Amino acid sequence: MIIQAFNNFIQIIYHNIMRTEIIGFTLGTLLTILGMAELVPALVDWSHDHVNANDFLLNAMICLFFGISMTLANWRFGKTITVRESFLLTTLSWLFLSLFAALPLYTSDLNISFVDAFFESISALTTTGSTVLGGLDNMSHGILLWRSMLQWIGGIGFIAFAIILLPFLRVGGMQLFQTESSDRSEKIMPKSGEIVVSLFIVYCLLTIACALTYFFLGMNAFDAVNHAMTTLSTGGFSTHDKSFGYFNDSPALVYAGSFFMLSGGIPFILFVKLIFQGKFSLFTDEQVRVAVGIVALLSLGLTLWLWQNHEYYSQHFEEAFRVTLFHIISIITTTGYATADYTTWGNFPIVFFFFLTYIGLCTGSTAGGIKTMRIVIASKAVFWQFKSILYPHGVFILRYQGKTVDQELVSTVLGFLSLFVISNVFMTGILAFIGLDFATALSGSATAMANVGPGIGKIIGPAGNFSTLPDAAKWVLCAGMILGRLEILTVFVIFTPYYWRK
Amino acid sequence: MIIQAFNNFIQIIYHNIMRTEIIGFTLGTLLTILGMAELVPALVDWSHDHVNANDFLLNAMICLFFGISMTLANWRFGKTITVRESFLLTTLSWLFLSLFAALPLYTSDLNISFVDAFFESISALTTTGSTVLGGLDNMSHGILLWRSMLQWIGGIGFIAFAIILLPFLRVGGMQLFQTESSDRSEKIMPKSGEIVVSLFIVYCLLTIACALTYFFLGMNAFDAVNHAMTTLSTGGFSTHDKSFGYFNDSPALVYAGSFFMLSGGIPFILFVKLIFQGKFSLFTDEQVRVAVGIVALLSLGLTLWLWQNHEYYSQHFEEAFRVTLFHIISIITTTGYATADYTTWGNFPIVFFFFLTYIGLCTGSTAGGIKTMRIVIASKAVFWQFKSILYPHGVFILRYQGKTVDQELVSTVLGFLSLFVISNVFMTGILAFIGLDFATALSGSATAMANVGPGIGKIIGPAGNFSTLPDAAKWVLCAGMILGRLEILTVFVIFTPYYWRK
Repeated sequence: MIIQAFNNFIQIIYHNIMRTEIIGFTLGTLLTILGMAELVPALVDWSHDHVNANDFLLNAMICLFFGISMTLANWRFGKTITVRESFLLTTLSWLFLSLFAALPLYTSDLNISFVDAFFESISALTTTGSTVLGGLDNMSHGILLWRSMLQWIGGIGFIAFAIILLPFLRVGGMQLFQTESSDRSEKIMPKSGEIVVSLFIVYCLLTIACALTYFFLGMNAFDAVNHAMTTLSTGGFSTHDKSFGYFNDSPALVYAGSFFMLSGGIPFILFVKLIFQGKFSLFTDEQVRVAVGIVALLSLGLTLWLWQNHEYYSQHFEEAFRVTLFHIISIITTTGYATADYTTWGNFPIVFFFFLTYIGLCTGSTAGGIKTMRIVIASKAVFWQFKSILYPHGVFILRYQGKTVDQELVSTVLGFLSLFVISNVFMTGILAFIGLDFATALSGSATAMANVGPGIGKIIGPAGNFSTLPDAAKWVLCAGMILGRLEILTVFVIFTPYYWRK
Repeated sequence: MIIQAFNNFIQIIYHNIMRTEIIGFTLGTLLTILGMAELVPALVDWSHDHVNANDFLLNAMICLFFGISMTLANWRFGKTITVRESFLLTTLSWLFLSLFAALPLYTSDLNISFVDAFFESISALTTTGSTVLGGLDNMSHGILLWRSMLQWIGGIGFIAFAIILLPFLRVGGMQLFQTESSDRSEKIMPKSGEIVVSLFIVYCLLTIACALTYFFLGMNAFDAVNHAMTTLSTGGFSTHDKSFGYFNDSPALVYAGSFFMLSGGIPFILFVKLIFQGKFSLFTDEQVRVAVGIVALLSLGLTLWLWQNHEYYSQHFEEAFRVTLFHIISIITTTGYATADYTTWGNFPIVFFFFLTYIGLCTGSTAGGIKTMRIVIASKAVFWQFKSILYPHGVFILRYQGKTVDQELVSTVLGFLSLFVISNVFMTGILAFIGLDFATALSGSATAMANVGPGIGKIIGPAGNFSTLPDAAKWVLCAGMILGRLEILTVFVIFTPYYWRK
């Protein structure tokens, strides 16, 4: 079977069934954008007379050279891509960009190994936010800005992927979000360009609003811009080793951070509707209602727990609420900022935040994880089963957001959850095989696959850092971050023999 | 909704929609059987002149008195029960019997609290095998025998439940095992009596074979009988604090234990076919093939790992294989015997055995957990999804054991898995809320729900004991054991308002 798949692979490459020019053109275009983006940190470091300016400039040139050559050599602008091509293209894009984005980190004055640079770059572009770098406060502004920019680019990249491609690829129940105009044809809809542009405008506007808010509440301009980019992308990289905790003195900043992280976890299409069509549909969206309800309920619950059980917070109710709200939103939106080490609060918060890691907020946002839509459908499927067990002859209809959901879609969603759990199990096994302890292996694979950032345990907890992990574990986590970001199936499908069959 | 459900509940009780005489008759009969069984440890302790003899005799009288009165007062022999009644009946039976079975433990010379006695009794009747008792080697023979007998009774009780009721209740995909004669009527099939009798005969024969083997390989008669009962029921209670490790000097006993535990995890209907019809269909059964394959593969893998990484076992290959095989079978069949503390072998074995806890072996056996059948169907559903994503217009058929499996059944299986995971998550949260640490809470809820026995971590690991847990945690684990044993849905469905609606 494997040999046959390989033969088919060769045939596909040679006979152009998988059109290499489409792949070349797309990767080339993305690389060109990356190269142009890289000029910004080059400029920043140059203005500070920092040695990394040359490093960034050189790497920008490399990106632009390869990017422009690939684009021109495969110039086929306007052609649509097939479903089959998009799977390979998506995975390749993230890997390819991560590789080139890692180069300036590797060649800079950070003196880190290649695996560390690649890990940091993948962690950025998948908006995970796990870091292997320490001493952020003394790092060159170029490096810090580059990390934030990569998260920002990764964020809009994922939104475009989630809104345009996933419904067509019918991955994990995302076919629910096929628009009316779309049919089950093999071609990606041509209107997608317009949608991407309006999403991009919304994303920019929100980032600017966030940066201005941060700035007026007391951050300096550099911090404000960086944190705005990593907030809206729910990435969670910071310019300080203490993460968002650096701004703990300003309660307003902590609340503002919570608000904008939450915005990053809301389906962006709703913001598009709000801004371009004037329709305020936030609270008519089932997913948003449930997600906000979960956040409110959990925040209230944990605040009360902390108030009852924590020595310091029992005297400071408002602070207990603030720190709880911030961290629940940070983990549930898969941002990963921390203002305190919640793993020191006791056994209950550890387990609480561990499971929170999986949730993710909403589909169509920059958040990772399982996502509320799937949790809602899975819960409804469970209740549907109770009814169906009691009334074997009854016919019950499962609805989501008013639409009837058929058995096939339910299977797709539940299948996604199973695959998420199974991947998590295997990845934990591999990490333990490499030598990581139970809590680090389990939460490490969870935080990577859900693109959150911090795990639990002493090593990779919110006060920790991924730098001391063995190199093998870092490679595994890189795979986990890509897998989670691309909703698992998108990546796995490429490794099935069916994919390479004519 | 709750008030309405309560009103319906009252109506059902008064208007006899749920026929109380059926419930009274069944519970009465079971209690009578329990009372008669209790005469055995009374006799054993009386022959040893042990004070517990009176205790057992008194409690046997109580059981017989209530049991016979309830049976006679509700005499309706031969009536069939409805699907709706069977849910309540099953849960009530396990709870009711556990309560009465706990009494002799509570009133004996053990001097334990009621929650401890109840925990031990539930752990026995659900064939879990977690214990709160220490000093087994010096305990009265009556108590030891009572624990083993309860597991043995629980084992056959579960097999009957799994083979007769579950397919009719259509819980977790068990409708796959509806026999040809069965239809989707509301009444449980009348032929079930015959099947139960032949299952009981097979169960007895296997237990006798196991006891004789143990005896001839060197156990004394008492140990042989006790361990045979807790092996075939995949319960895992032992008569020694060192569990099966007491017999470590005899490799033959360890291999025999592995063999009979594995037998306990095989669908008993296959043994019935073998003995009564002469059909050897063990290896044509898809579930058995996969299950044995998993055991073989994992044993080989972990043996090699241990041989490479463990100081002692690197010099003793056969011993590494033996100890690996024994523990993999012990955990995967949810027996829970231990001959060594595998949690001291390193990080990889800890994670390995933690995940093994969930699997369970086969449906229709005494094993708990998720079970191979569901893992097979879930895996096939995932591959089905890969195909369906790549060929949106294709029609793919999912088969299990040659039968076509429809989307609804797939949803049922995946829904069961989701419910298992969700219950596990909530139970872990509650245990952590009570104060248990991450590993204890997570593996404690897993080992309870999968009816395995030992967890991981210092407290409840294979070398530990559940006695030091807070009482609240013990109650939660009791609920978990019942929930897991009755395949979750059977219990949960009673708590839905749908159940109490007319």
